[in-house]
Amino acid sequence: MSALEILHRDPNSPARAGVLHTAHGDVRTPGFVPLATKATVKGLEPRDVKALGYDIVLGNTFHLFLAPGHELIKHFGGLHEFMRWDGAIVTDSGGFQVFSMGHGTVADEIKGRAPSGTERAGRILEIAEEGVRFRSYIDGAEKFMGPETSMEIQAALGSDLALVFDECTPFHATKDYTARSTERTHRWLDRCLTWHAANGPEHQLVYGIIQGGTYRDLRDESAEAVMARGVDGIAIGGSLGDHKEQMYEVVGWNTATLGDDPRPRHLLGIGDVDDLIRGVELGIDTFDCAMPTRLGRHGVAVVPDPEKRWRMDITGKRHERSEEPLMEDCPCPVCEAGMTRGYLRYLVRHKELSGLRMVTLHNLAYIARLMADLRDAVLTDTFTERAAALRAGDAPRAGLL
Amino acid sequence: MSALEILHRDPNSPARAGVLHTAHGDVRTPGFVPLATKATVKGLEPRDVKALGYDIVLGNTFHLFLAPGHELIKHFGGLHEFMRWDGAIVTDSGGFQVFSMGHGTVADEIKGRAPSGTERAGRILEIAEEGVRFRSYIDGAEKFMGPETSMEIQAALGSDLALVFDECTPFHATKDYTARSTERTHRWLDRCLTWHAANGPEHQLVYGIIQGGTYRDLRDESAEAVMARGVDGIAIGGSLGDHKEQMYEVVGWNTATLGDDPRPRHLLGIGDVDDLIRGVELGIDTFDCAMPTRLGRHGVAVVPDPEKRWRMDITGKRHERSEEPLMEDCPCPVCEAGMTRGYLRYLVRHKELSGLRMVTLHNLAYIARLMADLRDAVLTDTFTERAAALRAGDAPRAGLL
Repeated sequence: MSALEILHRDPNSPARAGVLHTAHGDVRTPGFVPLATKATVKGLEPRDVKALGYDIVLGNTFHLFLAPGHELIKHFGGLHEFMRWDGAIVTDSGGFQVFSMGHGTVADEIKGRAPSGTERAGRILEIAEEGVRFRSYIDGAEKFMGPETSMEIQAALGSDLALVFDECTPFHATKDYTARSTERTHRWLDRCLTWHAANGPEHQLVYGIIQGGTYRDLRDESAEAVMARGVDGIAIGGSLGDHKEQMYEVVGWNTATLGDDPRPRHLLGIGDVDDLIRGVELGIDTFDCAMPTRLGRHGVAVVPDPEKRWRMDITGKRHERSEEPLMEDCPCPVCEAGMTRGYLRYLVRHKELSGLRMVTLHNLAYIARLMADLRDAVLTDTFTERAAALRAGDAPRAGLL
Repeated sequence: MSALEILHRDPNSPARAGVLHTAHGDVRTPGFVPLATKATVKGLEPRDVKALGYDIVLGNTFHLFLAPGHELIKHFGGLHEFMRWDGAIVTDSGGFQVFSMGHGTVADEIKGRAPSGTERAGRILEIAEEGVRFRSYIDGAEKFMGPETSMEIQAALGSDLALVFDECTPFHATKDYTARSTERTHRWLDRCLTWHAANGPEHQLVYGIIQGGTYRDLRDESAEAVMARGVDGIAIGGSLGDHKEQMYEVVGWNTATLGDDPRPRHLLGIGDVDDLIRGVELGIDTFDCAMPTRLGRHGVAVVPDPEKRWRMDITGKRHERSEEPLMEDCPCPVCEAGMTRGYLRYLVRHKELSGLRMVTLHNLAYIARLMADLRDAVLTDTFTERAAALRAGDAPRAGLL
């Protein structure tokens, strides 16, 4: 039986609304997963994340492996106990970060840009069938991660949803490289499932990951391969092209192959407002992305302005004397408290923690409302209209969380 | 009539409990004033500060003058509106920071250490009767601050309690220098009062500041001089010696001179747990100090341990695997949420904002409970016993805020 209970399907698209049942509570879908990369949503306490209406957060296997180490987290009783988050947790496999050390940055990967060389503090020593040897970006120590290591770490973390170890092939990889890498990812998938069947926590759901770059035949093959396995959920990963239309096309290939498969679907690393709307329309259930939290820490607020890609950089001079809130009629705790653009600009420019925190809160509140709006629209057969309105710059409705 | 309504006096000491009436609500005394130096209590939102039980915060005239500038804050309707804090605000005069550029750091000043040379990004160009010319630590621009400037800035900020412009003489100043400086501070006091009478906001209370270093005759003269003026409140400033017993002695000289004067008394820059207990015992009504917030940002928790000066550095290796809370039975939001020393240690060591925030919350909650405990003790004629118990390591009682 699928962990996802589909409550309603949109009659005009593959969009669906449901409840993902986990060992740590229900996750309303479609839903967004804020990043708690290093066992904390940056700047926020668990009670803040809960109050914003989130059911689930994402911890990062690679980073937690290097610090503080999964053994220490296990000593505390797992990641839920360690960070005192009693909702659901998904952990990614670490493959993405491991390979990013060779390929480029996280954003580069997904968005199809050439590797920039930044954020490459660690270094890959060897990629082999067994797994990857690399140097830790923290202390330079030699480390190894393979399918079994990844599952073992995730078992120690005790997450509710584990992702299998994969290679996220870069956009600039050749078709030949992508094909060989995708095949290896499928072999790694089998090794992950074998390890988990023997040793994994019973409560932990395992998601396979579809790769295949931007090549339709590879994507189709990969989707079929993942579907054929006894995975609990299906994640779409890898390079999704170098522009949004290509991303939607690639995701569309995969969700078309998945068809009516009842298992939960997660789209990795995607979270712009228009991407979330389109992703739901394509039949995705959950999304994770650094966008709302990372932008928040840089003083960029999420606002209903499609022309500006739903972004407003409040550090600009034009906001210096602005007594406006980040967004009119916004029910988030920051706008409700009357915080002005001018005040937040001042705080962010002076690197005041409270400023970074408040823009993050606003952004996560916006995305929570957006997902609740989309979910309600599916449930009430108004998805087409709401998706169009939200895409055109309508503010997400309040009160649906 | 004094803004301070004294509700009860301890029969065995000059300690007193009351309510300080301000234009932005009542401040329960004895009470602690958290620093909102740059228009924010670092890492916290106003709602957090309120939830911890605080009635008042302190904004810094010097820092706000340099950035974002009092004109900008006035544009927003004053400091309360700018930072969205609807409780009381006290602003210090800026004199302390201006002179610290010449004398050494803030902590050096009060604690009697020799200037270390750190934190001296700005530079004094000239000290004259008129005021002080200096270079901004932000952009190197030449600035001027004198008594009228300070009062004008504080008027623009619209604080409920303003402090007059003074020189905080360093511990290592000669008696001759201290005497001349103290006399000038008294002349500046008159100029501040004259400016305020003509131009100050009606709701704003003005506190004079007693100086005189560690010289009894100068302290007595200064206390008499300040008392003789029509000030609304009296602050004790300046060097208080190089060890705690000397500090208590100097403060004791001043409160003895003040006697039964009904006006509110503020002790500037003091906030260690034992100092707060002793300060209340000496008849002080309010205190401000960077201690709880600054220590919090460095991972040092306030705990009931007199031998360790009420400090516990959680960054130490011995806390790595600790599943204990910062403090047993602590009702603060962080300990209540079950946060462990091990988790907080990890967060603080990795400079995670949430970790700095949570230790700050714990510390401010501790100090709020301490002050509420002391206040209740005065009101119930149990001050001598409670002061002794708290000094010996008793945890402040909960539920009194």
